[in-house]
Amino acid sequence: MHLDLLVEGAAEVFDGEAVVAGGLVGVAGGRVAFVGPDVPPGWTLDAATRRLDARGGLVTPGLVDPHTHVVFAGDRSGEYAERAAGRPYLEIAAAGGGIAATMRATRAADLEALVALARPRLDRLLACGVTTAESKSGYGLDLATEIRILEATAALSARHPIDLVGTFLGAHTVPPERRADRQAYLDEVVEVMIPAVASRGLAEFCDVFVERGAFSAAEGERVLRAGLAHGLRPKVHADQLTACGGAELAGRVGATSADHLEHVSEAGVAALAAAGTVAVLLPGAAIFLGDDSRAPARRLIEAGVPVALATDCNPGTCMTEDLLLMLTLGMSRLGLSPLEALRAVTVHAAQAIGRADVAGRLAPGRPADVAVFAVPSHAHLPYRFGLPPTRVVLKGGEVVYTRDD
Amino acid sequence: MHLDLLVEGAAEVFDGEAVVAGGLVGVAGGRVAFVGPDVPPGWTLDAATRRLDARGGLVTPGLVDPHTHVVFAGDRSGEYAERAAGRPYLEIAAAGGGIAATMRATRAADLEALVALARPRLDRLLACGVTTAESKSGYGLDLATEIRILEATAALSARHPIDLVGTFLGAHTVPPERRADRQAYLDEVVEVMIPAVASRGLAEFCDVFVERGAFSAAEGERVLRAGLAHGLRPKVHADQLTACGGAELAGRVGATSADHLEHVSEAGVAALAAAGTVAVLLPGAAIFLGDDSRAPARRLIEAGVPVALATDCNPGTCMTEDLLLMLTLGMSRLGLSPLEALRAVTVHAAQAIGRADVAGRLAPGRPADVAVFAVPSHAHLPYRFGLPPTRVVLKGGEVVYTRDD
Repeated sequence: MHLDLLVEGAAEVFDGEAVVAGGLVGVAGGRVAFVGPDVPPGWTLDAATRRLDARGGLVTPGLVDPHTHVVFAGDRSGEYAERAAGRPYLEIAAAGGGIAATMRATRAADLEALVALARPRLDRLLACGVTTAESKSGYGLDLATEIRILEATAALSARHPIDLVGTFLGAHTVPPERRADRQAYLDEVVEVMIPAVASRGLAEFCDVFVERGAFSAAEGERVLRAGLAHGLRPKVHADQLTACGGAELAGRVGATSADHLEHVSEAGVAALAAAGTVAVLLPGAAIFLGDDSRAPARRLIEAGVPVALATDCNPGTCMTEDLLLMLTLGMSRLGLSPLEALRAVTVHAAQAIGRADVAGRLAPGRPADVAVFAVPSHAHLPYRFGLPPTRVVLKGGEVVYTRDD
Repeated sequence: MHLDLLVEGAAEVFDGEAVVAGGLVGVAGGRVAFVGPDVPPGWTLDAATRRLDARGGLVTPGLVDPHTHVVFAGDRSGEYAERAAGRPYLEIAAAGGGIAATMRATRAADLEALVALARPRLDRLLACGVTTAESKSGYGLDLATEIRILEATAALSARHPIDLVGTFLGAHTVPPERRADRQAYLDEVVEVMIPAVASRGLAEFCDVFVERGAFSAAEGERVLRAGLAHGLRPKVHADQLTACGGAELAGRVGATSADHLEHVSEAGVAALAAAGTVAVLLPGAAIFLGDDSRAPARRLIEAGVPVALATDCNPGTCMTEDLLLMLTLGMSRLGLSPLEALRAVTVHAAQAIGRADVAGRLAPGRPADVAVFAVPSHAHLPYRFGLPPTRVVLKGGEVVYTRDD
């Protein structure tokens, strides 16, 4: 069989689980043909076979960012400065800032504006080697805008090399104009928004922010069960600021992922393990918020919970697309090993967004989503931080990013 | 007078102290001709005047990184993984790791090898908009290697667009083979190395690591006074892990800068203020070490101490060249305002390495070291983190870095 592309010259190939001896990745028909030290019998290299020299670098699956909020309008750099100066978030929010500020700007932006604003964010994710990402709504908080955000997500997924997985997060917070009757807003999420989003095929997941000041675990359960009834798999923003039963809820509803978890309880950890829920940890948010809290990554791993890492890219609590920095924070602040950190942005991240079958691994038959980094071993990808050493990214076997320094 | 280059189209120009209304920077003869809203009378734009469109971005002085250890050989990614797994540094050091590991590799590297290894690190600094940086020795810990590191620093400064300022740090630690007689090593630093370095013109500063396990304040004072006697201005690695009189020493000897300061005492803050010493804060190191400590930036500023930020780029405690990330950490973790953070990598950083007259400011007559960032305001440079938005860098009026995304 004709081989379209041979990636050669790597110091190491990480296949999503482990470092593979040797260093070839064969691509045919947009899919991985083989990974290993030699070209297996049956594959033919000819004049039409392109060669990609990894030049002593690291080859990995295209990375997966399993938790982002990249589709939004507006600017919160001023709020960031206020937070750094010590102004409490509740005071900022009471003055019309916070999520409500992004909500107003996002409601005012049309579909093409949202697409245009999110595109450079996806470009920056791609520059970190990301080929698949999740993207949440939750800055509309009314039916029309929540749908528009998810339509923008679908449009971006179609037009940009990165595949996006849509998550409906109508239960991000109660919008200011509905605070007098939060029950009515929740009813609308459950009875109107979820059916509308699901019937249009705009999301695969339904998420809820379970936290003091947002939604209770009981309210979250109602939202997630309504999502399940319409075919949306559950996710939970769980135990970020306080232990409030988010992880327990995730276990109870069989959530695909529980995200944040800085303050998860022991019962919560056990619930995630029992349910097979992936823990998506977001160490960039604490750094951006100037907060010392850390999710208990080692306890989660010891309990058998798969651990993923994500950027949490959003304008209020983590304005970055640098998934590679999360590897560093995952090691330095959460105690992951280099291989645990790499699995956290490949195989476990794919599992966290329902893409375990197509993303996060280099294996025969899978889409040839591949990243090449200018580092001499897998241990160096977290070790060096701050400027992504990404050299080439392939999506479905095609070169979609290249950079030489 | 003929203008060589006009930088136009900026949303904001930060001149090192403040945001300047309007947005033109004129360059003639490699120097800044003017900064302001209009071309002043007397300057002629003609066909030979190049135009640089900042395209709605931010224009700043070329940034200054006032504390790095970029000249070294060897690899400590494995040690980083051990630290993340919780192995104590003292245990790593006892097993031959830590500074001694870098020392062995650096002693084994010749001048050209050291230059070749450091060059990509400078390239990454440049990609963050840095045009002037400090570089310390301290991984040789014997006369020949300390001199070779500083010769490599001088060679790099001559060959690379970034101007490097050399600092002698023979008193980084006592090398393993001299531990039986630390006094003899200190004598050699004072009586042999400092005169040799100074007579060759290889350093402008003399630095010492005052810390439990390294050198006492009294030992540090001996080293710094010897440096002063040979024309080397003092710097101190002060109070990083414990309050051990580093800042007090800096004040006593009139140090140009005191660096780290996570555990500085009140008396130490007062001593820095009285001496006019710049505080160089290194928030990346705590992040990389998984440590929650923070330097008291606000107390320092309130006491009148100029605060600078630096990468601390080094293989053991902060493997990064991302000075822009330090702006974010300076705000999020140290409480700086956007302008304070920007001054910390421009005017105050230049002051911290004796370059207040030539670097860190855009003003008529100064070298035209200029950075252009693809962000809509100065507040966005710290706000967005992880992927440097650097678009163009000028050194002495010449384009030395350019990137379009």
